[in-house]
Order: sequence, then structure tokens, then C-alpha cells
Amino acid sequence: MEIGFSKQLDDAIVEISKLPGIGRRTALRLALHILKMDPHEVGLLTESITALKEKVCYCKECHNLSDTEVCDICSNPKRDKRLVCVVRDIRDVVAIENTNQYNGVYHVLGGVIAPMDGIGPQQLNMESLFQRVESGTVGEVILALPATVDGDTTNFYIYRNIQGKVPCITTIARGIGIGEELEYTDEITLGRSLLSRTTFETSYSKRS
Amino acid sequence: MEIGFSKQLDDAIVEISKLPGIGRRTALRLALHILKMDPHEVGLLTESITALKEKVCYCKECHNLSDTEVCDICSNPKRDKRLVCVVRDIRDVVAIENTNQYNGVYHVLGGVIAPMDGIGPQQLNMESLFQRVESGTVGEVILALPATVDGDTTNFYIYRNIQGKVPCITTIARGIGIGEELEYTDEITLGRSLLSRTTFETSYSKRS
Repeated sequence: MEIGFSKQLDDAIVEISKLPGIGRRTALRLALHILKMDPHEVGLLTESITALKEKVCYCKECHNLSDTEVCDICSNPKRDKRLVCVVRDIRDVVAIENTNQYNGVYHVLGGVIAPMDGIGPQQLNMESLFQRVESGTVGEVILALPATVDGDTTNFYIYRNIQGKVPCITTIARGIGIGEELEYTDEITLGRSLLSRTTFETSYSKRS
Repeated sequence: MEIGFSKQLDDAIVEISKLPGIGRRTALRLALHILKMDPHEVGLLTESITALKEKVCYCKECHNLSDTEVCDICSNPKRDKRLVCVVRDIRDVVAIENTNQYNGVYHVLGGVIAPMDGIGPQQLNMESLFQRVESGTVGEVILALPATVDGDTTNFYIYRNIQGKVPCITTIARGIGIGEELEYTDEITLGRSLLSRTTFETSYSKRS
């Protein structure tokens, strides 16, 4: 879908449609919106993108995004450094932070082991996790990876490498989501949630 | 959904999510993708957006987007200037150009009359259309506005203002789309397509 009558528009569509989940039609819609925007607003948009690329770096402790060498979470004295939550990527940090239920720190792997996609432990921030554990400062490692085959593979890989070196290794609970109907839950989740049932008292004391 | 641990990322999310159809979650996904992009590619993206805003203007003949004062379509000597297709916006020009079935020129209204949204003829490129018609150079005006109440209102408004001043005023055919099933066609379209039926010979000679 070449527009043909404006090279500038064609260029913008090509560049915008390189972004994930944005096809040429959406790119055209965005480009036409940008044309109607206030020039000042367009400046803010392009400057924020440039600044994002130039100024944001990765925290040397946990590999989370940061404006400084060590991120705000790792450098926060109120955070429990002995509690390390292992997540796949930064979006998962955001998701967990939004729950307001977690007061430890993170370790962002940058992906999960996926042999089919050529991603092994070497491609992930795995070695630095082991080093954190070896340093003896970690009391509990919480594995919060996706509940997929690749996530499980990664869980086992980490477990095998750190067992015995850290007092406690846990995984986040899997089961039926709060507010979810049994009827619409897939059978594997439902089956596992039956096998991993907890006592009534435990379940309700944790929720409050 | 404030990220909290990177002001640069928060800023980028705020700016990106101002674009239409992009929520904060998609903005985060795009921002994280931009972080992984090659710096050169990011430069191309921001430069194309800036150039789009700074260099693209509207054709003084047809109000289409253009890199020059008169757009490539209006200045193309192979185009039939006596045939003017009235469309709502630039996306419709793109859609019609993609059919490769049209050899005339366009007139982009910039919207349709929508009293509920406070859009009257004054807010649209209506006066310049009437001037083109008055100049006597137009042989046929094709009304290709959306098949909505507002589109119909605008069709009637234009018709009332140019009838008798141009040899021929037409509208694009409305009916069942090629490849569409009668079962899934809404009853108004199906009803109108029955009322506007054409002879078998006309229908098939036009398609080839």
C-alpha cells in the first residue's frame, strides 16, 4: 500500500509500520493524526522517543529499565533485598508493581529458555542471577515466569542451578483467577488448581 | 499505570498513548520495542515524523496531502480533470487509488456534515468545491462519501448547491460487496440492493 502522492507520508508510514502490531493501515491513520496534531505536541512525541533511546539504560543489579546505573527499586532502602522475584521482562515488573503486594526486588531475565527460537540460558540474564544467589545475600527466590512450557523449562533450569544455595525457592501460585468462572476455565488450569488445593483457612487468610 | 522507575519511559508512554487507538499498555509495548531498536532506526522514525509534520502540506486544488503546492494527482497530465470524485478524507483517496479503477481527480472535504458533532459546511472544504464547479471545468462530480446518515446529508447538501451547474452528478454504487454472503448482509443494505437492482448484462459487463 504505497500512497504515492506524498513521499514524506510514505516514509512516515514505512517507519511507523515497523513498530510491532502496527500494520500499514494503522500507520496511515497515525500519520494522518500526527499531521493534525499541534507542532509542539509532535515535538514532545519525537523528543520523548529520542530521550527514551538515548537516556534509558538497564539497572546493573536487576536488569530492569532505569534512568540511573541502579534502578529506583534496587536503590530503595525500604525494599527487602533478600527477596528476589525472577520475571521474564520489564512488563512483568510493571504488572507486579501495579499489584502493590510486593516489597522485594526483581531479577529481569529478558526472556525465557526457548530452544525452538534459539534462546538458551546464554542469551538471558542468567549468570548474574546465579552470582546474586552465590553472594549469599538472597533469602528467597520467587520464580514468577509465565505458566507455559518454556516458562516451566526455565523454572527447572534455575531451580537446578540454585538449589541448596538459597534458603527458599518458591513459585507464584497457579490456579483460577479471582472473579473467574469455572465453566470458562481451561481444563488444565482447573485440573491443576484441584491438585494444588489449599485449606480454606490458608486461602482466605492470604486474600485479606 | 505509572511505571515509576524510569521518568524517560513514563514520558514516552504518556506521549505515545496520546495517539489514537493506542492505550497505555500498547504504548509501553511500543516503548520497550523502541528501546531494543537500532539507534539509527529510531532516528529514522523520529525524523520521518518531524518531516511529515514540517514538510507535508495540503494541495491547493483538491486538499489532498502533498509535498508540493499542487499534488501529484492534480498535476498529472494523464488524469482526467473533468472528473472530480468527492471524498471524506485522505484515507478514502488512498482506498480509491488502490483500486486502480479511477483516472479522474479528487476533492477532499475533510469530513462530512455532522450537526451532532458541530461540523457544518463551513468546517469543510465545501466552498472550494463549489468554486471548482462554478469555473465550468468539471464534467462530472462523483459523490463517494460514506453510506451513513451524515454521508447522505452531505450528498444532498452538495447536490442542492451544484445541480444545474455541472452536466452530471453521480454517486458510487451501494449494494452487496463482492464475495459477500447474503445471509450475513444487514437487511437495509440487502433491501436497497434489491431496489437498486441492475440488469444481468449491465452488471457483468461492468465487472469485467
